[in-house]
Order: sequence, then structure tokens, then C-alpha cells
Amino acid sequence: MAKYCFGIDIGGTTVKCGLFTVSGELLEKWEIKKRTEHTGIHILPDVAECILNKMKERNLTRMDVLAIGVGIPGPVEKGQNVLFAVNLHWVYTEVSYKLSTFLGGIPVKVGNDANVAALGEMWKGGGEGNKSIIMVTLGTGVGGGIIVNGKIVAGAHGAGGEIGHACINPDEPEQCKCGNHGCLEQYASATGIVRIAKQVLEKATEPTELKAESVSAKAVFDAYKKNDAVATKIVDRFAECLGYALGILTTVIDPEAIVIGGGVSKAGDVLIEVVTKSFKKYAFSSYRDTPIVIAKLDNDAGIYGAAKLAIDD
Amino acid sequence: MAKYCFGIDIGGTTVKCGLFTVSGELLEKWEIKKRTEHTGIHILPDVAECILNKMKERNLTRMDVLAIGVGIPGPVEKGQNVLFAVNLHWVYTEVSYKLSTFLGGIPVKVGNDANVAALGEMWKGGGEGNKSIIMVTLGTGVGGGIIVNGKIVAGAHGAGGEIGHACINPDEPEQCKCGNHGCLEQYASATGIVRIAKQVLEKATEPTELKAESVSAKAVFDAYKKNDAVATKIVDRFAECLGYALGILTTVIDPEAIVIGGGVSKAGDVLIEVVTKSFKKYAFSSYRDTPIVIAKLDNDAGIYGAAKLAIDD
Repeated sequence: MAKYCFGIDIGGTTVKCGLFTVSGELLEKWEIKKRTEHTGIHILPDVAECILNKMKERNLTRMDVLAIGVGIPGPVEKGQNVLFAVNLHWVYTEVSYKLSTFLGGIPVKVGNDANVAALGEMWKGGGEGNKSIIMVTLGTGVGGGIIVNGKIVAGAHGAGGEIGHACINPDEPEQCKCGNHGCLEQYASATGIVRIAKQVLEKATEPTELKAESVSAKAVFDAYKKNDAVATKIVDRFAECLGYALGILTTVIDPEAIVIGGGVSKAGDVLIEVVTKSFKKYAFSSYRDTPIVIAKLDNDAGIYGAAKLAIDD
Repeated sequence: MAKYCFGIDIGGTTVKCGLFTVSGELLEKWEIKKRTEHTGIHILPDVAECILNKMKERNLTRMDVLAIGVGIPGPVEKGQNVLFAVNLHWVYTEVSYKLSTFLGGIPVKVGNDANVAALGEMWKGGGEGNKSIIMVTLGTGVGGGIIVNGKIVAGAHGAGGEIGHACINPDEPEQCKCGNHGCLEQYASATGIVRIAKQVLEKATEPTELKAESVSAKAVFDAYKKNDAVATKIVDRFAECLGYALGILTTVIDPEAIVIGGGVSKAGDVLIEVVTKSFKKYAFSSYRDTPIVIAKLDNDAGIYGAAKLAIDD
């Protein structure tokens, strides 16, 4: 019986790779450079080569490897094909079929990168012990992944969990990069926090250590931890928006836990505290005690989730 | 091999029963009266008796019946037990175990009534042909049911799909009966439409056939169909709220279709038209063409969904 699987996370600049046992132990992880020239035609052959090299190095045959899981930054259909992936310069690509062919028939399972990271966090990260979570990734944008009964909810258009573009303020004058107005991403991403910070700083009269020219999400939370009055206003607005959105989103799947990851989540306990407070205010009574926790796997969430994809039916 | 199953929908005043083939054909449907005296202890024995009578009448043995599906107006855990059901005067009840015991061991599967109705609509109703839908029921309140990959999303607290209590307007001064402010139910239920109608009528200066004392959701849509200016304002507000909410909710599961049922959905095509227009305005581009359709099974959605529960693994 096959004892190993690979979890592959094809990201913005590198490809992260992990070799796992089928019981979920990470044996080794490494990265390869991503070549995106010529419409990204090198990416899958490069991934295949790196897997085959690792198998050779460890004396693994095709029969020792159960499957390969792959996370891709684009919408995925049927756990196999990618509709498009702008960052990889890909149009419609049969990832599963192609990569499996390069690998002499080892099965390949494919998921959207944000969804795969959510699966990883459910399995071995902040959501461990749960089968159903909403994962929110607060980075440059706001990403998300939905897991129900231990499985990714990929969605009809490969867009399950695109919660960054839930409209939470139809009266927002500024446009989101998606073209709509008032998306969650405009308030809760690192970029969104900076946007709010500048608005607040412009009107602020209180003394503050924050400077409009150099403000960042990290600077805001650092100042907040020192009780900076202006930072408090910014964090309150961020928490109000995110807690409010989570209150609505939980009505759909009633998750066991909400997991918050991404760069902004480095703020840690204080972030959980303010978001939980706001969430409780807006959430329907049944959901009010749903735990909100910080993600744990950081940049490894993708390879863990991809390995879980590989292991599951 | 067992060829039959029963779909049972325990509702507010009656119990609806359906005898189905396992391929999904409804052979016969009937109702029995619901006795709720003595903390509802008669309900399950009555259901069992009516199933056994029907089996006798049709010369069916226990081996001919694959399973029984039951929809219950309360939160359900593990597809077996009901946490509570106010309308039935039930506290925690092991429905599956009890009913199965009365029936000589025929398997019994249990779901929340709104979720089970959603499953029915996905299977044989407005959502037929899809595996993943958001069902919204616009009745006295706003109910909902979420189906992903052909299965009910029951939720961690048995409250999956409680979308009537998604907060869409935190500034709403009036309180929802759940205690929060600005729940979807306050705008999109039959009661919510009457509430909006009274507010609009109070300020209206245009001539209208609507009267504040006797206004109903039906009267509003009837007047809207005759281009009544005041009814148009009311319907626009309703559609704005529902389309907006659906725009947010779709970001979670990216459904193949949105199905609208309940008394208010009798307004038919005009309702779909106004809600779709509003939905498109707020939905993220990936979801914008998600079809919004009217439910088809009416009061039979529950028995169909319960039968589907019985048939599925």
C-alpha cells in the first residue's frame, strides 16, 4: 500500500513542495523557483521533475505514492482543471491529467490555493479537530476558503469562499479593484486597513505615533497594543467590518470554527479579541459562541492542504 | 432489494406523509393530524402507526422499505437527533432511534424542515439538475436551506442556512424577533414587506390602491404588477434588501442556483426579475449570472426532501 503523498502549492513566486506520509506527517519540505515565461508552460513539467527527483532520492516507486495534491491560484473545476490563473499566465489547463501523465499515472488532485490552505488549517492548523470551518485570509487582499464535512466547497464557478468580495457597505464611495463598492477586502485586508488608517489620520486630532505616509497594518496594531487613541479608532473600524461580515457569512454554513490567517493575523490575540467582540454583536444567537481562532500553519497551510487533498477520496 | 421509502414532514399543524419509490416517484401522499398535547409524546407513535398502516394496506414488509426520512421544525444533530422543537413541545429527542424502534428497525434519517425542503427543491423542484443551491423561503419569516454536493449543510449548531437572521442593516432601529437589528427577515418576509409598506405608505404622496390597515405582501405585488407607484417603491426596497443579501451569501458556497420559495414567491416572474436585477448589482463577477428561480414543489418540498434523505447514504 502506498505510504506517501506530495502536497504542492503553486504560489506567486515559488512552488512549495512537501513530502508527507499518508497519516499526515510532513517528512520534508522545499521550494522550487516558478518559471512563468512562455505562458507558464514550464510550471507543470518543473513540478513533475522535482517530484520525480525526490522519489529517486528516496528510492520511492510509483506504487509508493498514493497521490499528489496541488493548490493553484485560480478557479478549479471538478478537482482537476483550472479555468484560468492570471499569476501563472495560464488559460484553461487540465492540471490533473497533464501532471499525472508526466508522473506515469500517479493520481493528481487539484484545488484553488485559498481553499487548499483552508483545508490545511482545518486538518493540522488553527481549525484542527473540526470538519467545517470558514477560513479568512487577511493579506494584501481578503481571501477565503470554506470547508464543510471535511471537504472544500469549490463552488459552481470555482469561486467558493470568495468572501473578500462580499459587499458589506453599498454606500462606500471608493471602488474595490473588482469594480464593486464596499467589498470586505476594502476594510479588512492589509491594504484596506491602510486605507481606513489614512482616512482616520486625516481627521484625527489626538496625538498618535502613526504617520499617514508610512502607515501599515502592522504599525496600526502595534500602536493599538500601546493604547494609541487613533490606532484604536482604526482597529475598531476594521473589527466592526470583519465581525459584521463574519456574522452574516456564518448563517450559511454554521461552521464549527472561524480561522483567521494571512499577514494581518500576526497581530494575534488582540485581533481575535476585537473581531470576536464585534462578531458576537451581529451574529444570530445560535452562532454567537462560534470560536474565532488564528491560523497556525503560516506558509505551510498550502502544502498541508494539498497533501490532505491527495489523501482523501 | 427495498423498493420504497417514506418522506415525512412534521409541520406546524399537520404531518405530511409521502410514499415514494427509491427512484424518486411519489406514489401517494396524505396528511395526519398532529397531536402536541403532553409535550408532544404522541407525535412519533402517530407517525409510526400511519407508516405501518400504509405498509399493511399495500402489503409491504419491513424489507420492502429502504428507509424513512423525516423533516422536523428544529435544529438537528448528526442526522438523527433534534436539539429542541418549540412547535412540537419537544426538548432533546432521539428521533431516529425512537421512530426506528417503533418500526421494527427500518432506518430513519432526520433533517431540519427548512433544510429538508431545500433538498426536495434541489432534487425535484426549482433547483432540479443542480447539486448545490441556496434555498430562501419567504414566508411569515425568512427561512433557508443550503445544499452542497447534493447534501444538506446542517451546521455545527443545527443552524446551517438560518439566513433570515443575516444582518443586512446594522442601523435598523426596529428590533427583529431574534433580538438583533436589521435581519434579512425584517425586510424580505411577508411580515417584513408589510412593515416596509407601512413605512412607505406613511410618507407617500402618490395615489395608490394600497391601504396601510389592510396591506399584505400579496396586495403589494398585485399593485406592483399594475404599475402602482407606491407599490413599486415597496417592491424596490424589498428587492434591494434580498438581492443585496444574496450577493453576500453566494460568496460562501458559490451555488449553482438560488431557489426562492414560500408564500411571497407566489408573486412569480416579477419577483425573480426585481431580485435578479438587485443581485447582479451587488454580486461579485464570478457569481453574477447565478440563476435565481422560483421553487416548484410548494408544500410537497418537505416530503420530497425527506424521501431524498431516506434514499441517500
